Amino acid sequence: MRVVVVGATGTIGKAVCQILRDQHEVVAVGHRHGDHTVDIKDQNSIRKLFESIGHFDGLVCAAGKVHFGDFAQLGDREMRVGLDDKLMGQVNLVLIGRQFINDQGSFTLTSGVLSHDPIRYGAAASLVNGAIDAFVRAAAIELTRGIRINAISPGVVTESLPAFGKFFRGHEAVPVARVANAYLKSVEGLLTGQVIKVV
Amino acid sequence: MRVVVVGATGTIGKAVCQILRDQHEVVAVGHRHGDHTVDIKDQNSIRKLFESIGHFDGLVCAAGKVHFGDFAQLGDREMRVGLDDKLMGQVNLVLIGRQFINDQGSFTLTSGVLSHDPIRYGAAASLVNGAIDAFVRAAAIELTRGIRINAISPGVVTESLPAFGKFFRGHEAVPVARVANAYLKSVEGLLTGQVIKVV
Repeated sequence: MRVVVVGATGTIGKAVCQILRDQHEVVAVGHRHGDHTVDIKDQNSIRKLFESIGHFDGLVCAAGKVHFGDFAQLGDREMRVGLDDKLMGQVNLVLIGRQFINDQGSFTLTSGVLSHDPIRYGAAASLVNGAIDAFVRAAAIELTRGIRINAISPGVVTESLPAFGKFFRGHEAVPVARVANAYLKSVEGLLTGQVIKVV
Repeated sequence: MRVVVVGATGTIGKAVCQILRDQHEVVAVGHRHGDHTVDIKDQNSIRKLFESIGHFDGLVCAAGKVHFGDFAQLGDREMRVGLDDKLMGQVNLVLIGRQFINDQGSFTLTSGVLSHDPIRYGAAASLVNGAIDAFVRAAAIELTRGIRINAISPGVVTESLPAFGKFFRGHEAVPVARVANAYLKSVEGLLTGQVIKVV
């Protein structure tokens, strides 16, 4: 299969590329580096990406920014960071990408544990993750041509603890290899409309 | 208690006002009619609303527009209807309203069954409802001064079947009186961070 991995230079994306490369053609897409680049906040950038890649069988997105910060300081502007990037960035990869995906192809998005296991400073991320999970359940029943869609919802990743560990005190971290395995399950398997938790 | 009901002229809002009026002072807020009016898409309109209402003990929001339509026709613009209105409208009522709410006050937002039980044409609504549910779980743990927050997640309302029944074929409808009772439970009770399903 030909699988596009958006966020290919990140901790999760790198591991997903590695596990997929064994049996698939991987198109690695980054924000600044990779076979191609994309700004998922920008629909035109997404459209150009797919026009230059052409048809594919799977799309994985492991990219998306959200604001982390004290709830007391949270306003509309801080919430919009995640709405425009991690949420609508991923949704638009599906809404635009479906014109380029082959029959029986799959979309695999990324949400995360905060949708149901919130932490201090994480309200904007929780909102976005809950939105992604619900979108995937709904999109799955309306997608045509056998196209599937799932979300991977990982806990904090062991390899990201230096950056994020202070926010996730007491959470059980999951090795990125386990997380990458869930993306493989979504891409190669037949599941659709599922939120695959890796905790 | 002094309870602000946004969306007071709608099917659910009217029933909520009725059940609350028995023991509370209700401030009825509509988009065009009511004691006060507000456009929840507009942060300035929300700020003006609270400035003219002053302090309160409870806020219920039973307002919020989303786009319903064929997934194949869904684009960024259609998704943004719900993000700006039902989602950020309700979130901003909390983020701005918390400056005006009394200690031990409560916010009660509205999501809905589509977050986990999707229907044709409902993907935008599902996304928004999932976001609201996750936001409420997260906001609850960071709110201070004993302030609580919950979401009511109703199925299709019996009294709304003439308008929405065609989208919810085969769903069990819930009488609006049962839905209103859930808002009462959130306002008068001690629950916080809960998604109260009425199905």
